[in-house]
Amino acid sequence: MRTLISETIHKTNEKVTVEGWIHLRRDHGKLVFLSLRDRSGFLQVVVNAKVSSVAYEAAKEIRPEFAVEIEGIVKKRPENAIDKNSAAGLVELEAQKITVLSKAEILPFDMGGKDLNLELPTLLDHRGLTLRHPKIAAIFKVQETVIDSFRQACKEKGFTEFQSPVIIPQGAEGGSEVFEIKYFDRKAYLAQSPQFYKQIMVGVFERVFTVNKTLRAEPSVTTRHLTEATTLDAEFGFIENWLDVMDMAEYVIKFMIDKVSSRNADILQMHGATVPKISAKIPRIKLREAQEIIFKRTKRDNRQEPDLQPEDEREICRWALEEKSSDLVFVTHYPVAKRPFYTFEDPEDLGYTLSFDLIGRGTEWMTGGQRINDYNKLVENAKKRGIDLKKSEIYLQAFRYGMPPEGGFSFGSERVTMHILELKNVREASLFPRDMERVDERFSH
Amino acid sequence: MRTLISETIHKTNEKVTVEGWIHLRRDHGKLVFLSLRDRSGFLQVVVNAKVSSVAYEAAKEIRPEFAVEIEGIVKKRPENAIDKNSAAGLVELEAQKITVLSKAEILPFDMGGKDLNLELPTLLDHRGLTLRHPKIAAIFKVQETVIDSFRQACKEKGFTEFQSPVIIPQGAEGGSEVFEIKYFDRKAYLAQSPQFYKQIMVGVFERVFTVNKTLRAEPSVTTRHLTEATTLDAEFGFIENWLDVMDMAEYVIKFMIDKVSSRNADILQMHGATVPKISAKIPRIKLREAQEIIFKRTKRDNRQEPDLQPEDEREICRWALEEKSSDLVFVTHYPVAKRPFYTFEDPEDLGYTLSFDLIGRGTEWMTGGQRINDYNKLVENAKKRGIDLKKSEIYLQAFRYGMPPEGGFSFGSERVTMHILELKNVREASLFPRDMERVDERFSH
Repeated sequence: MRTLISETIHKTNEKVTVEGWIHLRRDHGKLVFLSLRDRSGFLQVVVNAKVSSVAYEAAKEIRPEFAVEIEGIVKKRPENAIDKNSAAGLVELEAQKITVLSKAEILPFDMGGKDLNLELPTLLDHRGLTLRHPKIAAIFKVQETVIDSFRQACKEKGFTEFQSPVIIPQGAEGGSEVFEIKYFDRKAYLAQSPQFYKQIMVGVFERVFTVNKTLRAEPSVTTRHLTEATTLDAEFGFIENWLDVMDMAEYVIKFMIDKVSSRNADILQMHGATVPKISAKIPRIKLREAQEIIFKRTKRDNRQEPDLQPEDEREICRWALEEKSSDLVFVTHYPVAKRPFYTFEDPEDLGYTLSFDLIGRGTEWMTGGQRINDYNKLVENAKKRGIDLKKSEIYLQAFRYGMPPEGGFSFGSERVTMHILELKNVREASLFPRDMERVDERFSH
Repeated sequence: MRTLISETIHKTNEKVTVEGWIHLRRDHGKLVFLSLRDRSGFLQVVVNAKVSSVAYEAAKEIRPEFAVEIEGIVKKRPENAIDKNSAAGLVELEAQKITVLSKAEILPFDMGGKDLNLELPTLLDHRGLTLRHPKIAAIFKVQETVIDSFRQACKEKGFTEFQSPVIIPQGAEGGSEVFEIKYFDRKAYLAQSPQFYKQIMVGVFERVFTVNKTLRAEPSVTTRHLTEATTLDAEFGFIENWLDVMDMAEYVIKFMIDKVSSRNADILQMHGATVPKISAKIPRIKLREAQEIIFKRTKRDNRQEPDLQPEDEREICRWALEEKSSDLVFVTHYPVAKRPFYTFEDPEDLGYTLSFDLIGRGTEWMTGGQRINDYNKLVENAKKRGIDLKKSEIYLQAFRYGMPPEGGFSFGSERVTMHILELKNVREASLFPRDMERVDERFSH
């Protein structure tokens, strides 16, 4: 019967069997110290030739990453040897028997340190191994919390989870960066977003969300773009006005950050990261106000630009932190031309949309807004932009048969994970990152 | 302030504002009865010209699927008019004011009946509308429960959820039915399963699961195949033997069926469906035993076949129900040649694998088994099958550096939903089904 490492602290002086991987090995003559890792934590195993010569013999061949089963007696560690960073740090195991379940070749680099100091390409070339490093594995416990808490936040507000397709009949939003598939004797495409489908689903369940793969043929190699991402999307109807959408987005992101704070406190500490500082209400400013503020602060005049430049995003975040004590800021009212055809124009501020981006720590986290729910207006806008909706008949049906005022928002789980843990590259927050230069293997050029 | 329909029963004689879609309209002279639908249920609205002439005037243009906001007084319904099938069936709303939020064109067919009697192609051609029919929408509440309860079952056993990629460097299992993508100046493929990735993740978190899109270029049009499915996958290490895998699969499927039973009892009733009958322990028989039983019962001799034929699957289910009082049965020990290269051969029954299929109601629900965890054996087996693992370096790493004994299982959320609700075609259990003949729109030939 296997005992998890985290349970050993309750079994002092008992005989137990633990299983896991060898994390570290240190030799001191007739004493071998092994650090054993399982899904619940780390345990020091003492192999003493005087206590068990069979265990000592078996330990001879054992190297890091061997999968092993070890029988032994749980002992209290002496006061000065307590490891406060480990759940089982109060105890150690005196080995009596060691069974190798699976051997490991000699590692190409040391996996035993607190950090794994590898260049990104090397880290990814060895992803099947490097993911096991505790500091790297921990990133994906945070991603799990991000996704999980998004679902929980939505459910608590009456949202239904649905499954959006990845194979689509054409680029949904008329964009160019879309992957093409050979679909039997035809062509099909990969969805860049579940936008059309989540709007259809508003007609079905009013409030919906989806955690879905989004695929973009992003032809640039930057620190924040992936060709495949796990995206969090929510959409809901019967809104009173567009502020309902921003309020919901604010509730969701706060809920998520709270969950990471409480559930992954140890990981935040391990990464030396702190969750973003959030004021009681996240500041909200129009794009033009933001540009004015930036101009005043820096004398850099981007007031005629239809969007924030990267340096502007960083500057407005500095402003939000200094003036509003918030790491996050909503920038609203992007010009009509810069937003998709289905975006609602502000009737009180023509030329500008009822849309927002959530900017945090210098880059965009989330995008959202109110959508056009009137069928005629929607079709007219698509036509104006040269977007062909003839393969989107089921999308059009949702509007032809009574679509209430609605809106929603969207954001990537990898980007949020990256920003919360203050990672430098979004690839670090994707288990198996895909970009122009890599799909598992690095392409040779 | 909007009141949800389900809350109206607590607001008798109060003035409320409700919002939703017009489900039905009946005219009785100066009285109009509207059935209003929102995400929480149905409400009868009485528009009486004598009570409110403005409401009566507004109601004139209203047709099914209009999105509306209605103000009025909640009234107790007379004893003989109570609707026991509706959450709000004890009350009705006496309309004072009706506001149209969004109009609907005249519907192409009646959406107000208990059933929507349309042929499948018509049903799917109008998916943006037909999904709103309560009996159809309900299917996807069951799918939500299926997926949700899978996650919950896994989490309770210490599994970590991870995100598996859909873009892959080559057909992972060497199969032919794989979609090809134009990936910049290269080719990439769509994942038919997260198999390789979930095995890699066993090395990281020991116990993992994923809810993922799987894409198969299935060239046949059957009632149980889709080109895109939402698949539930689990995999875990440090198993004692392969029975641990089947036990876990049994626990998970029972957990899921229990959840549907309790959470979706009303939907089961609406569909005239009952969840599968399950015995205390799901019967487990070897493929050869199953074939022997089928031969004895039917005189049909398929005892030399390497797999169960469709009529065999139905017969073994009849046997399981009659002899073991179970709608589900595990069939084990498929021949080595019929299972993927990574499947573990039974050392005590050479030529046969430590694998299982879960068969229920006449077809396969789930497949699983123990995997080869020894690096050399795995590479040798791939080579024997002519499978090229040179683009699967990170998969091989997981085995090169200590992979414990492990196994897992996989099944489609659409199939389980279809079987639980006793639907005739898996397309009915997919929101936006994709097959050879359709990606939203029906292909013309």
